[in-house]
Amino acid sequence: MLVFVMAIIPLAGGQGLHLMRAESPGPSVGKFTSKVRSTAVTLYGIYILISALEVVLLVLGGMPLFDSLIHTFGSVGTGGFGMYSDSIAHYDSGYFDLVISVFMMLCGINFNVFYLILTRQFKNAFKLEELHWYVGIIAVATIVIALNIYHLFGDFLQSLRYSFFQVSSVIKTTGFATADFNTWPELSRSILVVLMFLGACAGSTGGGLKISRFVILLKSARRYAHRALHPNAAQLVHFEHRVADEHTVTGVNAFFTLYCLLHVISILLVSTDGFDFTSTVTAVTACFNNIGPGLGLVGPMGNYADFTGFSKIVLSLDMLIGRLEIFPMLMLFAPGAWRIKKSIKGGIQ
Amino acid sequence: MLVFVMAIIPLAGGQGLHLMRAESPGPSVGKFTSKVRSTAVTLYGIYILISALEVVLLVLGGMPLFDSLIHTFGSVGTGGFGMYSDSIAHYDSGYFDLVISVFMMLCGINFNVFYLILTRQFKNAFKLEELHWYVGIIAVATIVIALNIYHLFGDFLQSLRYSFFQVSSVIKTTGFATADFNTWPELSRSILVVLMFLGACAGSTGGGLKISRFVILLKSARRYAHRALHPNAAQLVHFEHRVADEHTVTGVNAFFTLYCLLHVISILLVSTDGFDFTSTVTAVTACFNNIGPGLGLVGPMGNYADFTGFSKIVLSLDMLIGRLEIFPMLMLFAPGAWRIKKSIKGGIQ
Repeated sequence: MLVFVMAIIPLAGGQGLHLMRAESPGPSVGKFTSKVRSTAVTLYGIYILISALEVVLLVLGGMPLFDSLIHTFGSVGTGGFGMYSDSIAHYDSGYFDLVISVFMMLCGINFNVFYLILTRQFKNAFKLEELHWYVGIIAVATIVIALNIYHLFGDFLQSLRYSFFQVSSVIKTTGFATADFNTWPELSRSILVVLMFLGACAGSTGGGLKISRFVILLKSARRYAHRALHPNAAQLVHFEHRVADEHTVTGVNAFFTLYCLLHVISILLVSTDGFDFTSTVTAVTACFNNIGPGLGLVGPMGNYADFTGFSKIVLSLDMLIGRLEIFPMLMLFAPGAWRIKKSIKGGIQ
Repeated sequence: MLVFVMAIIPLAGGQGLHLMRAESPGPSVGKFTSKVRSTAVTLYGIYILISALEVVLLVLGGMPLFDSLIHTFGSVGTGGFGMYSDSIAHYDSGYFDLVISVFMMLCGINFNVFYLILTRQFKNAFKLEELHWYVGIIAVATIVIALNIYHLFGDFLQSLRYSFFQVSSVIKTTGFATADFNTWPELSRSILVVLMFLGACAGSTGGGLKISRFVILLKSARRYAHRALHPNAAQLVHFEHRVADEHTVTGVNAFFTLYCLLHVISILLVSTDGFDFTSTVTAVTACFNNIGPGLGLVGPMGNYADFTGFSKIVLSLDMLIGRLEIFPMLMLFAPGAWRIKKSIKGGIQ
């Protein structure tokens, strides 16, 4: 996100990095810092290329050009806005489902991967740890849900089609739907809610906690458990085949705490509306992680209309905070940040 | 918990501390480490004194001696076992409700506080930060819930009575009930679920995440947010009027991550039973934090009978892991721990 902004605004010195670090979890930034501007232009190129490819594939499948553009923007850019109230289910086409599923999944990948592929560094591209976790989680979730909803379709390929679409849509925090997963068995619903929290890869267009943060959290917890048994062992957290510095590890933990805290506060505020626990909790989860549909009242075939103005303001703030990844949002409201903003303005003059 | 065990088993050297640090969050242990055994005996004394006091007050109010003993053991020791299926609501007595509420709240306080009071160190006892947070959270939760359920009773004192009882019972992870809070408005239900996660003070008989961990998490997140704005500021986390060492801060963060991870895994496993989201999530929360009643199917007037054997095993493990606070449980299953156990056995001989 911020990389795109920085492509247009030429910044003086390293002030851009300061903001960029705030938005993206540490490890992925390092690779690109030498020439932020030219990188940003390259990323723009990748973004446009992927979008164009999706439009072409959708048009080839018989979708009108206008519809193709709308749904491409919605899937590549994570907006999730469709043209019909029943989202992509409107077309009831296995081909469209597959194309959109694949592109949602692709755009949840760290854009570094595409950059590395374009510059023919295939080995570096495919050895990225975050990518392995992302693909692994999608594969496991898709198969488990497909088995869990098999009885609804009576055909494994069909249930795989619906499962893959919903998993891609939720983990990439897009929000398109081809089925009312609110009526699916509880295991599938729970898996989708967990994926809402996880989110996509760092450096992708997706939201959520981000896979890289999740992996670093796991590893730092494992390290502590290991230390409890071997108090003298000095272990380091490795991520993406190098040592993660302690500042990053601490930062990810602090981020996670704030993330949970803001979730809980939002749930308490939204619960004043008196809707059921499921709707209240998943409404916050779906907004905070920028998905859109949750469960219950706010399921794929429901909407947020019944919430009061107060709750809508809370949920709107959640969407902004979630999209900007908490810290830049905190910076915006902290007195110290205005000094940083002024210096950026100074850079533009 | 472990302090009591250590009072009976005389340990050679400092091996007991190794286990004790694993069970209790860092800051509170320091105060007692010089003479673990005599401290344990003192804590036993406090425990018996409080229990005796509660029995006397209940008997004076007209409760049969046997009932008084059962309910005292249930409230002081966090068991939450009552004699009747409608728990304390059976007596429908404001006096019993008040006595049990107060004792549940008291036993959720760090036993250090009572130790300090007994040794006439009143100033030290009442300046404990964790105590302020604990009392503050109970006060706010009680008042908000009382206002929220006012329309159910039409009398503020009555709603305060029911609110205080449920708040005490849940934050202290006892599980007694005087009302079916499952039928209360969503705000009250959400607050109670949040209190289930929070739990009581470290060094009390209560379970949950523990207030001290919550405060340290908050402060370490605040520090990180501050650092993002002032990269050169070297801030320390203060807790209980002294600097918390970084090992404790990292440990609490790692604990929180494992705590969330085990919650999520348990929810996914229990959701295979296909019960609704609310029942599934709060069943895990209520078991992991050793409360007992949750919401929905497992509300105060419901039970866990309908879950399958598989889910019951998962929930049983959650209760054990939650009660032992994760790390000792991990130690039990880690190969390295057996060496520690052997050395403890060696100490007994």
